[in-house]
Amino acid sequence: MTSPALSHRMTITDEKNPIIPEILDDDTVRIITVSGVEEIGRNMNIIETKDDILIVDAGFQFVSEGSNAPGINYILPNTQYLEERKHKIRALIITHGHLDHIGGIPFIMERIGNPPVYTQYLTSLMILKRQEEFPHLDPINMQIVKEGESFTVGKLKVRTFPVTHSIPDAMGLAVETKHGDIVVTGDIKIVTEDGKVVVEERNAWEEVGTHNNIALLCDSTNADRSGFSAPEARVFLTLDEIIRTASGRIIIGTFASQFDRLVSIIKSCEAAGKKVVMEGRSIKVNIDIAITAKLIEVKPDTFINTNDMADYPADKIVILSTGAQGEEFAALMRMATDKHKSVILNERDTLVLSSSVIPGNEIAVQKLKDNIYRRNVKVINYQGSHVHSSGHGNAGDLVWVHQTVKPRFLIPVHGHHYHLKSHMFAAIENGFPRENIAVPDNGTIIDIKNGTEMIRQKVKIPTELVMVDGFTVGVRQEVVLRDRISLSTDGMFVIIATVNSKTGKLRKSPDIISRGFVYLRENQQLLSEARVLIKRTIENNTERMNPIDLDLVKDELTDVVSGFLMQKTQKSPMVIPVLIGI
Amino acid sequence: MTSPALSHRMTITDEKNPIIPEILDDDTVRIITVSGVEEIGRNMNIIETKDDILIVDAGFQFVSEGSNAPGINYILPNTQYLEERKHKIRALIITHGHLDHIGGIPFIMERIGNPPVYTQYLTSLMILKRQEEFPHLDPINMQIVKEGESFTVGKLKVRTFPVTHSIPDAMGLAVETKHGDIVVTGDIKIVTEDGKVVVEERNAWEEVGTHNNIALLCDSTNADRSGFSAPEARVFLTLDEIIRTASGRIIIGTFASQFDRLVSIIKSCEAAGKKVVMEGRSIKVNIDIAITAKLIEVKPDTFINTNDMADYPADKIVILSTGAQGEEFAALMRMATDKHKSVILNERDTLVLSSSVIPGNEIAVQKLKDNIYRRNVKVINYQGSHVHSSGHGNAGDLVWVHQTVKPRFLIPVHGHHYHLKSHMFAAIENGFPRENIAVPDNGTIIDIKNGTEMIRQKVKIPTELVMVDGFTVGVRQEVVLRDRISLSTDGMFVIIATVNSKTGKLRKSPDIISRGFVYLRENQQLLSEARVLIKRTIENNTERMNPIDLDLVKDELTDVVSGFLMQKTQKSPMVIPVLIGI
Repeated sequence: MTSPALSHRMTITDEKNPIIPEILDDDTVRIITVSGVEEIGRNMNIIETKDDILIVDAGFQFVSEGSNAPGINYILPNTQYLEERKHKIRALIITHGHLDHIGGIPFIMERIGNPPVYTQYLTSLMILKRQEEFPHLDPINMQIVKEGESFTVGKLKVRTFPVTHSIPDAMGLAVETKHGDIVVTGDIKIVTEDGKVVVEERNAWEEVGTHNNIALLCDSTNADRSGFSAPEARVFLTLDEIIRTASGRIIIGTFASQFDRLVSIIKSCEAAGKKVVMEGRSIKVNIDIAITAKLIEVKPDTFINTNDMADYPADKIVILSTGAQGEEFAALMRMATDKHKSVILNERDTLVLSSSVIPGNEIAVQKLKDNIYRRNVKVINYQGSHVHSSGHGNAGDLVWVHQTVKPRFLIPVHGHHYHLKSHMFAAIENGFPRENIAVPDNGTIIDIKNGTEMIRQKVKIPTELVMVDGFTVGVRQEVVLRDRISLSTDGMFVIIATVNSKTGKLRKSPDIISRGFVYLRENQQLLSEARVLIKRTIENNTERMNPIDLDLVKDELTDVVSGFLMQKTQKSPMVIPVLIGI
Repeated sequence: MTSPALSHRMTITDEKNPIIPEILDDDTVRIITVSGVEEIGRNMNIIETKDDILIVDAGFQFVSEGSNAPGINYILPNTQYLEERKHKIRALIITHGHLDHIGGIPFIMERIGNPPVYTQYLTSLMILKRQEEFPHLDPINMQIVKEGESFTVGKLKVRTFPVTHSIPDAMGLAVETKHGDIVVTGDIKIVTEDGKVVVEERNAWEEVGTHNNIALLCDSTNADRSGFSAPEARVFLTLDEIIRTASGRIIIGTFASQFDRLVSIIKSCEAAGKKVVMEGRSIKVNIDIAITAKLIEVKPDTFINTNDMADYPADKIVILSTGAQGEEFAALMRMATDKHKSVILNERDTLVLSSSVIPGNEIAVQKLKDNIYRRNVKVINYQGSHVHSSGHGNAGDLVWVHQTVKPRFLIPVHGHHYHLKSHMFAAIENGFPRENIAVPDNGTIIDIKNGTEMIRQKVKIPTELVMVDGFTVGVRQEVVLRDRISLSTDGMFVIIATVNSKTGKLRKSPDIISRGFVYLRENQQLLSEARVLIKRTIENNTERMNPIDLDLVKDELTDVVSGFLMQKTQKSPMVIPVLIGI
């Protein structure tokens, strides 16, 4: 009897680990862009010297429909390089609290030896809040850094400086090495007023620029947009006006991670004498965190429960809701589809989507808008009104940073390759020497010697995708994914036949189990023909075999049946024969 | 022995056909929006009187990733209503040659009884070209309508009038009925110059407005954009300038269906003394059609073969290519990934994406851009330059049409619900009485009596999705799709056990076939535990059974194993037990 179980069709050759030269001298500083430079998400960079490794950020990447990874929850940075050098890791430094910078922490901390985490207060609260969902993990050694503070880990002094992003307590880093500093911006935009950089922003960055900066790792997310970015203050004003003037109920969908905006909305509501209803767990969690971090002091009667809304006139109510990306089960979609237990949309409501559309979510947001418009509620969004601005700087912001920080080498990070190259083109156009710009890939190793010589290693660190798939975390999901994609387009066709081990004849007509291929009820004729073909193929093959080797029959059977099904249906289901010798 | 084959898990109750009242009097005209009003794609509308049915357009819808229909090729209009009323169908009228208006023809013509097809010349060529791919079909009875011509089918006179869209030979219709006309715009934009509607446009629409128009079925695709649409002439000028001034090779990616733009590009190339290389089958086919239709006369030496490019200096070459939506195997993606046999991108190339991004294709276009930027080639696209304009009018165009045609009732069509409602809001804001606007769904039946009374029937025509899935065309793919989606996220887990029919004991350890669930090699322990659990569950269940009924065991086994796998892996593979009694 042949056993099909566990004989997976794909053979796997383990990826040979490339031999990576270690740093042997004090004059070299190594920068590794682990991930986040061929995607938006899973940001992680390494700064390494002969004795020490610092890790900057540990994000994960969300997997959207259309990204060809069905069933996968998240994609993580590949930490194999770090796992092999745990003894050198001095710190994980987190620039700010967004999931593309902190999301990977619960999955990787143990693998990298639980180093201390250095970050500012709000970020620390967000990290610890998430950690509650993983109670089996070791506690984090959390080192809270105050704004602008410095600290030393191993032989490296790290200066932090405040930066502007769409979340408070965001910071940049300057790591002091023998021949000069490595500056990491984190996610940034530059605040301008009437087209001029404001003084706080100018002071912080000019201070960085007074040092000898070897290299600048700089955000590229919006590098393909020209000029300076739109200030968030304009968004606050727009939302404030909507809140003050709306004659009915207001529903605002936004990212829960937009702390400043949430805070600003709540302040506007208080000023306008309106009550705030929070819908969606992440909004509640983050507002709790904002209050703990003293980012806002909320009057005791500002927040009301969803159930108490009926006690107030509609024009006194502002609902802050999750789900602006069209998430199927979030509060906003439930309201839009009349499935929300207490909010029924009506024509007098004003609905604001205070967010952009994350690429990959376009169809989901379209469905959300369709459903909202079914209730005859008009949507105010970023396309027609200033109700959203990005937390990332345009090319104008980035070039200003280059010119203020004055690094010798520029390494664009945070974005798809297209964004990094757009960043490079913008820098070149503004006089940055092209040969001093390195556009990295995930896993690229850049060694800088004596602060003046940039060497891009030919080898990369291991870059196989590490996926979170239910409870499984690993690199081997590629094999499983290939099967899922195949099953998802053409389904499966399992053949079960019991064969007389002596005569090679089938004991009875073979069984067929098929899912996701064709609608079986309407394809009885096809199945009958397939059964005849299966019986004939097996018996023709076994006829002159002695002894009968069913393994030899299986390949032939797979080919014959696949060809037959393709010819009849134009589909290629996964054909799996199970031959049981009795 | 139990036979699992063909026992599909889902039970299907056939959708009861609603009883639809027939039209019994001469004073009623019925409008049915079959499809295309809850999506962009598969446009089909019906105009029906007591004696006659006219069908306007027969498009299909492309299925993008992220639209939750894995493996499906296209979605068609549901023609069941028409199939049951074949005897009344007098004509299929096609407004223009885009696939969302003609794509369904090969799949539905036979079902609706092969009525004559009325359309203009270019459209007829495009329909017949596609028909060549379906050689088994009956020939089409093609009735070519010249620009502005009228014709009579059954008792209905149909006047056509020229409209502006992104393809030539586009037309609108006015169907004359007893109490007035039903006007169908087809896909339209209004040509303006310096913000004023040009005279040809004005003349055509004002003529329509001189009649007594009961209802207007009007394009809504861009109704959420304010003001007048950008004229295509601006795109021609931009492309002309790029073609004249580029100092290297130019590659232009565009929709093959943008006839006017292709023609304009070729003319610019000829004027600038440049050679044109066509890449991609659909571009070649459509330029052939354009030449046949005498839309352009091309000089004999304008086109050169890809292989002959080396004979010309780079600044004399313009490549017209398919694939601007990031299609994986199209010419542009092959160039961008160095897989094209004769075009290797280099920094001196100018690459123009003369197209918008169709929702759902964002990630594919991002990949295309990433790959192009890997070759250090900058992309000029619609976000930074006027290299594309839509063929659909903004709200400004649409309101101008309402005010010129002056219909009593307005029925927005062509778009998602959101677009139709945006159209409605724009109309209301400009004085159209709200009660005279009907925003339809797919399958909505609108009866207009005496030209003055609009009745929206409570029932709809059948609307189950009709899908093309390989060679299968039918409504029953929903069941198959549900399985595909489930298989795509969690895979499958087939259990095969041979059971002694007398004792209920397993003959040997059960076999497991699993795909798309977990990586089996690294989960041997899980599989061992599953086998033990399976054996125990079966034998515990059969212990006191007499006779042994394996069907009863299967449900219990499915539940137990599903629960076990979920608990261990956080995944829910499709568990299928096959118990073979011997």
